[in-house]
Amino acid sequence: MAMTFPPAADAQSTTDLTPSQDSSAIRRMADNILTEGKAYINLKTLCKGAPARLSGSANAAKGVELVRQMLIDAGADTVYLQPCLVPHWVRGEKEEADLTVAGGKKILLNACALGNSIGTAPGGVSAPVIEVRSFDELDRLGKKVIAGKIVFFDYPMKQTFVNTFQAYSDAVVYRVQGPSKAARYGAVGVVIRSLSTIPSDFPHTGTTVYDSTLPKIPALALSTNDADKLSNYLRMRMVTRLHIKTGCKMLPDVPSFNVIGELRGSQHPEEIVTVGGHLDSWDLAEGAQDDGAGVVQSIEVIRALKASGITPLRTVRAVLFMNEENGERGGTAYADSAAKDGNQYIFGLESDNGGFTPRGFSIHATREQFVHFTAWRQLFEPYGVYQWQIGGAGADVEPLIGVKSVVGELVPDSQRYFDYHHAANDLFEAVNRRELLLGAVNMTALIYLVSTYGI
Amino acid sequence: MAMTFPPAADAQSTTDLTPSQDSSAIRRMADNILTEGKAYINLKTLCKGAPARLSGSANAAKGVELVRQMLIDAGADTVYLQPCLVPHWVRGEKEEADLTVAGGKKILLNACALGNSIGTAPGGVSAPVIEVRSFDELDRLGKKVIAGKIVFFDYPMKQTFVNTFQAYSDAVVYRVQGPSKAARYGAVGVVIRSLSTIPSDFPHTGTTVYDSTLPKIPALALSTNDADKLSNYLRMRMVTRLHIKTGCKMLPDVPSFNVIGELRGSQHPEEIVTVGGHLDSWDLAEGAQDDGAGVVQSIEVIRALKASGITPLRTVRAVLFMNEENGERGGTAYADSAAKDGNQYIFGLESDNGGFTPRGFSIHATREQFVHFTAWRQLFEPYGVYQWQIGGAGADVEPLIGVKSVVGELVPDSQRYFDYHHAANDLFEAVNRRELLLGAVNMTALIYLVSTYGI
Repeated sequence: MAMTFPPAADAQSTTDLTPSQDSSAIRRMADNILTEGKAYINLKTLCKGAPARLSGSANAAKGVELVRQMLIDAGADTVYLQPCLVPHWVRGEKEEADLTVAGGKKILLNACALGNSIGTAPGGVSAPVIEVRSFDELDRLGKKVIAGKIVFFDYPMKQTFVNTFQAYSDAVVYRVQGPSKAARYGAVGVVIRSLSTIPSDFPHTGTTVYDSTLPKIPALALSTNDADKLSNYLRMRMVTRLHIKTGCKMLPDVPSFNVIGELRGSQHPEEIVTVGGHLDSWDLAEGAQDDGAGVVQSIEVIRALKASGITPLRTVRAVLFMNEENGERGGTAYADSAAKDGNQYIFGLESDNGGFTPRGFSIHATREQFVHFTAWRQLFEPYGVYQWQIGGAGADVEPLIGVKSVVGELVPDSQRYFDYHHAANDLFEAVNRRELLLGAVNMTALIYLVSTYGI
Repeated sequence: MAMTFPPAADAQSTTDLTPSQDSSAIRRMADNILTEGKAYINLKTLCKGAPARLSGSANAAKGVELVRQMLIDAGADTVYLQPCLVPHWVRGEKEEADLTVAGGKKILLNACALGNSIGTAPGGVSAPVIEVRSFDELDRLGKKVIAGKIVFFDYPMKQTFVNTFQAYSDAVVYRVQGPSKAARYGAVGVVIRSLSTIPSDFPHTGTTVYDSTLPKIPALALSTNDADKLSNYLRMRMVTRLHIKTGCKMLPDVPSFNVIGELRGSQHPEEIVTVGGHLDSWDLAEGAQDDGAGVVQSIEVIRALKASGITPLRTVRAVLFMNEENGERGGTAYADSAAKDGNQYIFGLESDNGGFTPRGFSIHATREQFVHFTAWRQLFEPYGVYQWQIGGAGADVEPLIGVKSVVGELVPDSQRYFDYHHAANDLFEAVNRRELLLGAVNMTALIYLVSTYGI
């Protein structure tokens, strides 16, 4: 690129503001975030100071302390912890997966246990392996073929979905339900192809859910490269056995917390506008894209309002939820409290789709309510948000539907998310500063508008 | 992120197609690109096989051969080279910049010569340095202060521009005009703060243009981190001298080529629809984002049309332009030929803003012509393109305005572009496969529509 510049819809502080006060206020907050924003440095502090914040772990507790301090530093009026009991699953000792091929050669595979998986016996499980590409195929094969084997669910995320979350949605059933579906036919273990859109050596973990009426069998994810490898050896009929080993186990529930910071509304303090991300992460990495990004963006909303001298008319509350990944206990605890505290919960926004460049918002609302949002759309276009859709919301704010709240989520660009999701490369360094801050800009703008006008 | 999915505007091949034939054709090509696309592997071949493709270099010539073969492999009917004479600037031996501070300590700075800069004397230039933040300030200081010194233009790219190309546009004058402006007042050298939006140790090169009526003085870029360092030492009044050294020089022009591949139109072969990127790059890296991405995306347009069994009604021509970076001789040669060959050049599209996720198109057209484009907008939303603007076009297709062509450019997300632009980290690894391919999808769709309907 040399020197041509599309005159994009952009606005530099002092030049082409629209006359409206809202657009001026948003521009002021945006400038503040893009120049003085703390989200990126907070993300570094969180990721390096408390990586692997799996619910119930010491690092999750450390994360609670770190973000509590960040909310105080951001200028929240009140900062407090909201208790919740969380599951305490631990991965245990070193995990192994290896293949024995014709001639006796052993081939190591990159693998990790799925979250909530039981452990194997100390020596692991060794059995013949069968590749299965769908639940239909599993049902056709039935007990005769499946019993005594390890089932390899080899269902790739489809590249043809432009929105990678749709590809995830399409493929994730094998991770969530695969182990119990295979156990029904007598399988002794499950491995799945990692849910990733790239060829990679990192296995991707994530929750599996056991059907309580069926035997629990251990379940691991193979890296996409090693899923290819296993598939190739199977096609060549060279595989004799697959051996998997993991020491993971579920311990008793432990007390933990959501971390909450508020700016009290000056006119309608009883109307609550929630913005959040989840503080817990999987245990393999730093939980940067998932969901350190959403955590620090939510804190940034508080900081930017305060730093820009804006006292919201309705109460703005940043909530850093615990246990989104394997239980959603934090989100549930927050909604339970909301049902009882006498306040009105008018809106809940979550950022839990990565700290990538923002593209839009998804809002779970009636068509009538949604019109309020799209009426604001021009205020967002200078900051790169063009897509507004009635749709889903973040998992932690979704329970607020029970108290009649409108809920929603930030929709960042999805192309790179599954390069990192639940894998060991989800590190601080995977997040781009400007992309992260621009997400915070748009979240701040939306929270400002809802806290000013209601819904 | 666990398990909620916004039902974004997306379409999986077999499910929710609109009835229109265009949307089906585009879906077919998109699926082909996202699953069978060659752009990413071609980018690797180009970047690793012919990095540092600066005009006139042996690697630029190697690049010509590589992309010629790629066009043949893509299925172009005709592949040919279009000659042009290009400047031949070389960086020469190892470059140096170092600071002597109070007490005599020497501090090395990361620096590189600006493109087209003259070299220093063999021992370099050593002089006092003065920090200048604007041309106004330079004028105020005048000859008395500037003469005999090295001028340090310390003008950062402003973070508050959401579109980073606007920040570039705002700051690039110091790189382009700074050396001659300083020479007017007797400066003996210039260093500038690199044009980047991130703190980094990589200096960013790029063209400077000498005013032929003034003495030529050597000009270098400092990495943004080292610009900070120099600025800090100057603020502390600790700097005694700056020493800069570079052996770069301008050699005589050499013959080179644009590389062209066509699919001949079945109904209006004389109407030409051009799509391109530039094959040359700066010499410090692999020219992946700038502009290997645009090169392989343009080749992908040809491949995807061919692989999808589409014979365009008008001629589609992929042009890989030489010498965009420091002369635009390739773009000029193409337009000169267009003015004489009797064909009608109806549209020229360039991709030269990086291989990032596509956001929109900028079209240089009358409002009447522009309506044709926006009538197609819904066909693009499933592929993430929402922004259509009347505006600039790529530097290589811009000269086609002279033959009454509508011209335009792909507008990808701009947040990460200046992390890499013209610096040693612009490597193949900086490009994300899905982002690159999705750009090619949208380019292919637009070229398909223009080649089918004209303008």
